[in-house]
Amino acid sequence: MPPPCDLLVHDALILTLEPEAAPLFPGFVAVSGGRIREVGVRDPDRPLPEAREYLDAAGLLVLPGLVNTHCHAPMVWFRGLADDLSLKDWLTRLIFPAEGRWLTPQRVYLGARLAAAELIRAGITTVADGYFHEEEVRRALAEAGLRAVVAQGVVDFPAPGVPDPKENLRVAREFMDAGADEPEGLLTSTLFCHSPYTCGPETLTAAKDLTRARGLPFFIHLAETQGEVAECRAKTGLTPARYLDRLGLLDEATVAVHAVWLEPEEVELLALRGVKVSHCPTSNCKLGSGVAPVPELLAAGVTVGLGTDGAASHNRLDLFSDMALAARLHKVHRQDPTVLPAAQAVALATREGARVLGLEHRVGTLTPGKAADLICLDLQQPHLVPLYDPYSHLVYAAGAADVRHVLVNGRWLMKDRRLLTLPWPELASRVRAEARDLAAFLAGLASGPDYL
Amino acid sequence: MPPPCDLLVHDALILTLEPEAAPLFPGFVAVSGGRIREVGVRDPDRPLPEAREYLDAAGLLVLPGLVNTHCHAPMVWFRGLADDLSLKDWLTRLIFPAEGRWLTPQRVYLGARLAAAELIRAGITTVADGYFHEEEVRRALAEAGLRAVVAQGVVDFPAPGVPDPKENLRVAREFMDAGADEPEGLLTSTLFCHSPYTCGPETLTAAKDLTRARGLPFFIHLAETQGEVAECRAKTGLTPARYLDRLGLLDEATVAVHAVWLEPEEVELLALRGVKVSHCPTSNCKLGSGVAPVPELLAAGVTVGLGTDGAASHNRLDLFSDMALAARLHKVHRQDPTVLPAAQAVALATREGARVLGLEHRVGTLTPGKAADLICLDLQQPHLVPLYDPYSHLVYAAGAADVRHVLVNGRWLMKDRRLLTLPWPELASRVRAEARDLAAFLAGLASGPDYL
Repeated sequence: MPPPCDLLVHDALILTLEPEAAPLFPGFVAVSGGRIREVGVRDPDRPLPEAREYLDAAGLLVLPGLVNTHCHAPMVWFRGLADDLSLKDWLTRLIFPAEGRWLTPQRVYLGARLAAAELIRAGITTVADGYFHEEEVRRALAEAGLRAVVAQGVVDFPAPGVPDPKENLRVAREFMDAGADEPEGLLTSTLFCHSPYTCGPETLTAAKDLTRARGLPFFIHLAETQGEVAECRAKTGLTPARYLDRLGLLDEATVAVHAVWLEPEEVELLALRGVKVSHCPTSNCKLGSGVAPVPELLAAGVTVGLGTDGAASHNRLDLFSDMALAARLHKVHRQDPTVLPAAQAVALATREGARVLGLEHRVGTLTPGKAADLICLDLQQPHLVPLYDPYSHLVYAAGAADVRHVLVNGRWLMKDRRLLTLPWPELASRVRAEARDLAAFLAGLASGPDYL
Repeated sequence: MPPPCDLLVHDALILTLEPEAAPLFPGFVAVSGGRIREVGVRDPDRPLPEAREYLDAAGLLVLPGLVNTHCHAPMVWFRGLADDLSLKDWLTRLIFPAEGRWLTPQRVYLGARLAAAELIRAGITTVADGYFHEEEVRRALAEAGLRAVVAQGVVDFPAPGVPDPKENLRVAREFMDAGADEPEGLLTSTLFCHSPYTCGPETLTAAKDLTRARGLPFFIHLAETQGEVAECRAKTGLTPARYLDRLGLLDEATVAVHAVWLEPEEVELLALRGVKVSHCPTSNCKLGSGVAPVPELLAAGVTVGLGTDGAASHNRLDLFSDMALAARLHKVHRQDPTVLPAAQAVALATREGARVLGLEHRVGTLTPGKAADLICLDLQQPHLVPLYDPYSHLVYAAGAADVRHVLVNGRWLMKDRRLLTLPWPELASRVRAEARDLAAFLAGLASGPDYL
């Protein structure tokens, strides 16, 4: 007799997200030591594995936790603060002043805690984050129990916590070193070069060297807008992807975020180099950036994951809306309803996202040996009845609010929609008080709107 | 002293949706006899109106109930049954056989009850529906307490309940006459010509005459796909809008649904005739139909509302996702983040939707004298904190699940997310049993998947 497992989730409808795997029903997942020990269909002639804790998941859909490949968690401060503006107005009138003069390490931490609450409630169990004062984000996400790839932002101009840009790589290196020996394997600490237009070639190559020496992912915004491509051409004679390739930055550990304006040859180039892509459809739509060539990238064999981006450009840190938007946007863009079918959209948000972050050995599918990161959705609701195809429901009908329980590394972060690792609603009260201060700071007013 | 009102909703953040009106906080709405008696900001020096029932709405956002200008309620049976297919495959392989041989009046009724549950849970208080056996939809929506414009479908080929197309207008007329004297003013009964390609010119003009004589709205799918436009040109020498205009069908009571493929002169034509447009962005995206020229229609002065369409093409009957998609889609389509700002998207889903349906004297804004149709959203959630701009939250961050209470005509249809006019979860069990039968019918199997 094997020893009892820690947790048995049983009688669920289970999607393992292993390629081509059929849904399991009535399915069970056995968890031990933070890992998945067994996944299967209940056999009426054989007792279920014994466990110290049982979750009767009848009426629930169980799948791997969602993997958010691009986020700026502390930007929840700017959620809904300045929508429907041009990127330039938005940055210069609001975001830069707020980041430069209002955002303190304490506020980065508090914002990241709010973001963590939101991510967990939306069923996101792994998040790749990039910002400044990233050690505060790391602390907040670690306390919340999330799995994260945290990346210190690098730009060649003064930034929060890095007033002298000559220090940007020293700060990033210290951040990476401090995070190198995280014991639980939940956190990866790396860096994030903002973009080819905000980092010079020396910074880019030195930053990539830092991550390469440590075997870590390297993040960079790439070809988000047409303007960026034109500017890069004017300055370097090359498109952004070709420019990064000339600098030797494109390899299997590089994550190109956005990748909207790519020529067909650049799609091939990314595929050839093994570059990963973080697709952020909601952000790209709201900012009017453009439609990334995702069907082409997938056809070329590029690994693509989904990202929410920060809450200033995707006001909700919710990959359900990105799955839905990705599936709908590429269909209408091609005028072809067969593009990016539901099961593929779910794979991008789970298995493929894990591959983007180099975490495919650990998460992304419900597979024995991998970490026990899973989410349970409540199917007993009017918009999820009847149920013919669980992938369809996940993409076209479900939402973040349907996530009922969230498990990361074998630990419950949410049960029955109650956050177990974050103080709610106390957190909301603190956020509101600070947000009033931000609104007043920006408006030059004595106080912000009463209803904040 | 005035007599006490029936209901006082107080201490809410209120959006009246009257043009240019600022948010009210702390706001109240007084309801009497199913109508709004007073809306205002609480005055500390003056007591609130007396009421027989009080709702403390602190922490809630109150706005007019959403108006869904296009739905096929019974198509919830086909939710997720056949996604990611071409329109032709979808119709011929699944929808037509299911509608023709499986759908009974009892199943239309049961489906419409499920749809009603979903609509209420998503904060939709008025729905324009068009289908066959529409008397069953009318019965279901009336029992659920929803406000509705129900329209009997008209096509020139055999349809559910109308095996002989020569009877289509007689059936429609009888449907309209039977609904003409509905006492509470909640229901409007009219007809819905499916399209210029499924109805001949005699049917179209006779149908329009029927609605014109009664002062009722006339619905028609228009220019949904490029193929439809090409076919209409080949048959009539005219684009669909010009063809309908030649038949005399375009006037202020005509609601053109979809209106995707319009030439600039046709936009002007719709504006000149006062035609209303129901914009269904989710459906248009999922079917790969195209992007309607909504910014152009609005600039030309056309009244535009939002529609979910049926659950086969928008798997969730949820206008929050249509608000979000409309705001995002038109931005990326124009590469201009200032297109269709949040407040305008909310107006389309409320005030403008009411105008599309000719119900602007009754619903669409929180205005004394209008019907008490309102919804309350819970703002105390991680994804809705902080709050700088309630319109932004409604469009870019909130979802159907944030709707906590729903009031129609002064009657609560949902309180604390509990449905008060529909039996849940009993309804779900009945739907599941029938859906198994449908899956078996379509697959020619003995039984459908176990997890239905």
